[in-house]
Amino acid sequence: MNNEFDFITRNFLPLAKNTESMHLMNDAAYIKNKNLVISSDMMIENVHFKKNDSPYNIARKLLRVNLSDLSSMGSEPYGYILNLAIPKTKNNSWVSMFCEGLKIEQKQFKLKLFGGDISFSKSIFLSITIFGKNKMKPHNLNSAKENSDIFVSGYIGDAALGFFLENTNKIKEYLDPDDLDYFRDSFWMPKPRINLGQNLNGFANSCTDISDGLLSDLNKIAFHSKLMAEIDITKIPLSNKSKKVKSLFSNTKKFWEIVLSGGEDYELIFSMNKQKQKVFFNDQRLNKNKITKIGSFKKGKGVFVYDNKNKRILYKKMGFCHF
Amino acid sequence: MNNEFDFITRNFLPLAKNTESMHLMNDAAYIKNKNLVISSDMMIENVHFKKNDSPYNIARKLLRVNLSDLSSMGSEPYGYILNLAIPKTKNNSWVSMFCEGLKIEQKQFKLKLFGGDISFSKSIFLSITIFGKNKMKPHNLNSAKENSDIFVSGYIGDAALGFFLENTNKIKEYLDPDDLDYFRDSFWMPKPRINLGQNLNGFANSCTDISDGLLSDLNKIAFHSKLMAEIDITKIPLSNKSKKVKSLFSNTKKFWEIVLSGGEDYELIFSMNKQKQKVFFNDQRLNKNKITKIGSFKKGKGVFVYDNKNKRILYKKMGFCHF
Repeated sequence: MNNEFDFITRNFLPLAKNTESMHLMNDAAYIKNKNLVISSDMMIENVHFKKNDSPYNIARKLLRVNLSDLSSMGSEPYGYILNLAIPKTKNNSWVSMFCEGLKIEQKQFKLKLFGGDISFSKSIFLSITIFGKNKMKPHNLNSAKENSDIFVSGYIGDAALGFFLENTNKIKEYLDPDDLDYFRDSFWMPKPRINLGQNLNGFANSCTDISDGLLSDLNKIAFHSKLMAEIDITKIPLSNKSKKVKSLFSNTKKFWEIVLSGGEDYELIFSMNKQKQKVFFNDQRLNKNKITKIGSFKKGKGVFVYDNKNKRILYKKMGFCHF
Repeated sequence: MNNEFDFITRNFLPLAKNTESMHLMNDAAYIKNKNLVISSDMMIENVHFKKNDSPYNIARKLLRVNLSDLSSMGSEPYGYILNLAIPKTKNNSWVSMFCEGLKIEQKQFKLKLFGGDISFSKSIFLSITIFGKNKMKPHNLNSAKENSDIFVSGYIGDAALGFFLENTNKIKEYLDPDDLDYFRDSFWMPKPRINLGQNLNGFANSCTDISDGLLSDLNKIAFHSKLMAEIDITKIPLSNKSKKVKSLFSNTKKFWEIVLSGGEDYELIFSMNKQKQKVFFNDQRLNKNKITKIGSFKKGKGVFVYDNKNKRILYKKMGFCHF
């Protein structure tokens, strides 16, 4: 695994030897006897966004990123605690626009603001602790089964391409403003798969959301489930606009690195055994999302990606890592 | 009330119209049907501490400040979510010392680490969301009763004097190293009054912890309870070391401003009616802390401080305010 995993295992796992923490290996904690799922995510100036980015967008993304953790646990959104540290200069229109962003997402996802803390600070720090209710045991990262198939929701790579295109000029000049808007939107407005997460309860044997990158998050499932994941690169669902961008890359490997390891997709990646698939994919009430089978779990370890000639492709970079 | 209150009322109260938030007027949220109290506090570099302060002390204070919110709600500590953003240069010995600080407090207060988020960041940003269990309805800020007496636990002002002495040289030179250690310790190692908070369940009709300053936090109770608080400055409990510092101030008013408005005491301030006092103060199992009566609530509004000649003293500064 990566440095971040080692860092957490070494420093924090010894402090979290309790059932609620689920050994810090999931997207959230779970208080079983209170049927409560708890997760937390930060957004920090110059790490996750820039000083002058729209506070309305920042607020929406902050909530959506946290909601995505609930979706990966199969939870129903309940409420959140907000921590807000901002420069004194930002305390008027900035905050009211920020709150407009919170408001629209609270309404859409039926979420309550429970409380929090505010402080001034030289740069902007935001964190949310979010609460979800679970009728059933939440999804887990360590329970994928051999011969289960691996699925992803939606399209992969659009958000990472959005971030890439913001910071490059080369390819951008060949794209329409519409295309650029699409990718910017994919980066700023993830779509937490709340309904899908809940529909997968009782069907998926593992599930997580793609935040650090498809390869990295799939690797977490494989590692914790003590299995090997094999995926077929030709099956990775690409949006039409992303296919257009792909054709502009002289080096396709670079394109795939962005798509598979760039992260911020906030789509679900999950596994399901074949028996359950028969029921799930035949039930129109459950199967409302675009879902693509990209591979399967086998005996072994690691994540292996195969090309259209069934040849293994090597990737140096697994995904985004903080340390 | 102050700007921070207006700021919260204007921006965040419209988002928190739910029973769990308790209208954002308490030290924590309360999920009644899950018997769970939730609070959150941040600590930020250059606001709450300096870059090179001991990570061991920072971690201990971070947990204790959050635990103090549980004490003011009469809760039993349960667990916490940690958000940690630090520069990449700090990720080895700094983090292991930080975790040592968490460890000792987790053990002392029987607290579990549930999960959280880590990120790199140019400066240090820390936040904790803490969870407490409540057997009874938690204490409230808006339920003080007319003719109830006002009490504080421990000594007031030592932490604020600790902060003051760190940043001045004038008075410091007349103090022993022992004295300075005492004040530094008062600032860095608040003593969350967990047992007292729980013992006050069913006795206090209002309770909060003194974080922003005695006057400011008392004013919150008075404001939300629609009452006037009258306190006698001669009754404010001062430690012997603080009395020594007082004698070194040429301007006693400045000394009292630090003591009454400096904050960071993390002692409890609460009110109790006379009937309940008879029971509470006669029960050795309940009444284990140093508790001092400093005044009482009357019809009216505001907080009034009287000197030894029963003359009203005016204070410009109520307490620490972020905005």
